Amino acid sequence: MKRNRHPYLFTPGPAPVPPEVLLEMARPVIHHRTPHFAAVLDSVRQQLQPLFGTRQEVILLASSGTGAMEAVVANLLSPDEHAVYVDGGKFGERWGQLIRAHGATAHQVRVEWGRSVRAEQVEDALTANPQAKAVFVQASETSTGALHPIAEIGEVTRRHDVILVVDGITSVGVFEQKMDVWGVDALVTGSQKALMLPPGLAMVALSERALAQASKCRGRRFYFDLLRELKSQRDEHTTAYTPAVSLVFGLHKALELIHAETLPRVFARLLLMAEATRAAAQALGLEILPENPAPGLTAILAPKNIDSGQIVRYMRDELGVWVQGGQDRMKGRLIRIGHMGHLSPFDMLTAVSALEIALGRVGYAFECGAGVAAVQRRISQGI
Amino acid sequence: MKRNRHPYLFTPGPAPVPPEVLLEMARPVIHHRTPHFAAVLDSVRQQLQPLFGTRQEVILLASSGTGAMEAVVANLLSPDEHAVYVDGGKFGERWGQLIRAHGATAHQVRVEWGRSVRAEQVEDALTANPQAKAVFVQASETSTGALHPIAEIGEVTRRHDVILVVDGITSVGVFEQKMDVWGVDALVTGSQKALMLPPGLAMVALSERALAQASKCRGRRFYFDLLRELKSQRDEHTTAYTPAVSLVFGLHKALELIHAETLPRVFARLLLMAEATRAAAQALGLEILPENPAPGLTAILAPKNIDSGQIVRYMRDELGVWVQGGQDRMKGRLIRIGHMGHLSPFDMLTAVSALEIALGRVGYAFECGAGVAAVQRRISQGI
Repeated sequence: MKRNRHPYLFTPGPAPVPPEVLLEMARPVIHHRTPHFAAVLDSVRQQLQPLFGTRQEVILLASSGTGAMEAVVANLLSPDEHAVYVDGGKFGERWGQLIRAHGATAHQVRVEWGRSVRAEQVEDALTANPQAKAVFVQASETSTGALHPIAEIGEVTRRHDVILVVDGITSVGVFEQKMDVWGVDALVTGSQKALMLPPGLAMVALSERALAQASKCRGRRFYFDLLRELKSQRDEHTTAYTPAVSLVFGLHKALELIHAETLPRVFARLLLMAEATRAAAQALGLEILPENPAPGLTAILAPKNIDSGQIVRYMRDELGVWVQGGQDRMKGRLIRIGHMGHLSPFDMLTAVSALEIALGRVGYAFECGAGVAAVQRRISQGI
Repeated sequence: MKRNRHPYLFTPGPAPVPPEVLLEMARPVIHHRTPHFAAVLDSVRQQLQPLFGTRQEVILLASSGTGAMEAVVANLLSPDEHAVYVDGGKFGERWGQLIRAHGATAHQVRVEWGRSVRAEQVEDALTANPQAKAVFVQASETSTGALHPIAEIGEVTRRHDVILVVDGITSVGVFEQKMDVWGVDALVTGSQKALMLPPGLAMVALSERALAQASKCRGRRFYFDLLRELKSQRDEHTTAYTPAVSLVFGLHKALELIHAETLPRVFARLLLMAEATRAAAQALGLEILPENPAPGLTAILAPKNIDSGQIVRYMRDELGVWVQGGQDRMKGRLIRIGHMGHLSPFDMLTAVSALEIALGRVGYAFECGAGVAAVQRRISQGI
């Protein structure tokens, strides 16, 4: 970042945090069993509901998103039960690991990385495994940038009378979630993506059906006991265990900013960034991985025979522009650019400009400026 | 806090955070899989070792202290195993709940609230339950302000060849810990006490014996898998799951401040505050609860027939001075004043002054100013 005043953060989480939120978090710490904290907690829990698309209560946890994923597994599946999970990337795979770690049987619906699961695949898995109690899926698979069709899957799980658990870590606050309408029974998210906060806070909402299942569940949990947390947060207006107080204050400010912008505008801003980035990739002769891309991030395939890690490192070390490479089997093949957090469409000019420079350095042949021009065109149409 | 510029935080956690640390946490967020974060993580893990009194590696977790307590249970006890735990307060009780929540059998060593366990009681429990694999205890029981004799218990657990697990949430950074010398196999702490940070970060160190036991352990865990975390933090210089980045930066600054002050001076400062507060209680004709008081907090018994909640609320609502009441069976009976965090002996003048005013309001008869004078005397001797 030799000539930059500061690094540019375009990773698909952590995402940039607004200065207002950073300063809110820098306020002196207060105790968490006080009327002041209670009012803030009540307010953020309520303000989160429209982001989840639910009238159910949102539960806060002091953990990263994986902790919340574990919480729903441990509260909804008993050790000897069965579940179906959609494995279309690293985070889908994680559902399988979590289900097995808690002693339940995990039936995989395998989806090629970058593809979206079809609702029929989930239906087939439930028909083949009638003992399954739940389906676990990502709304947006962060490792591939692919969307999964939650509304359609919700129709299937309702028909089969099983619980639908959705990882919304890169979808809550990114595009419209209709938890109640879609029949989602558990929706999970984390603080460091669209909520414009540092990592360390996670949120879960449970349907009435999920609450009933949790009350019978024999899964092992204590710190992640969601019914105890819900009771404490609802009745005592504080968390069962010490909350991440400064992050809760930061969340209060972030939600104020989000609702001031209004959710439809937030969603439109993110989508515009995603579309501008996709247009840039196309203009540069590059493909994106997902067939049905999520708006939270764009996963671009590196040119043939070029290691994406080289591009990502050059962008980071020489240009001060941070994007992310591929994970696991996509290592060396992907360039993932995030659109979540404190970012605006114009920022994509920077991301794409740096990408072009790095592509030039690694010997890829393209028309210099074509990507930036594509971003510019898409922005000008979108305003 | 009608006439105060700001509230005064004397709760035994969360404790006040220095402005330098708050500002460090307000820095723009960076990604956690980068050389910069790696350097900070390595540095904090190393700088924590002297606070733990260990040459073992310290593992960071994004959770509150209870999460780290659960982590050691889930990594050291398999579902059908037995353990002994010292129950001398709310946090001792929590060990029992955690052990049972993970399907193991918990044998209680009951200790009256305020008393310290005797090593012989632990020895008797191990003799009576030879199948026990571990002993769980607090170094300092925050609900009563009592110390437990960890060095002596360590002799017992070594003799019986069982694992010793210690909750150091109000002892690490508060007084000297000699984890390796005392034979402690797992030592746990949280961010919001002596480490002068907001809550949301926890730390664990494991002995070689504990590491070996963890590798065989069948306890259910994923987010709290300590061996995976250790491997990731040691080999990849980052956490297995997204870390609470801003808290880790804050910790880096807090440890810089702690080591600049030097640990012996930190411990002496805390002890001076504790002794000054105890002297004030005595001068006011009040008793403290613990027979062997911990330096991190002072738990004062409310005068007979007076509800301590009334005193605590008056101090908070009318005077802007926040202390804590009693928990569970000590509800209404205790006034707990913390000495941890960004506090100095002179601050105890404020705490005791407010306590005196509140005592006067609830009709307790005492010589006004006697407590403040006692603090003053103890400070002047200690300088």
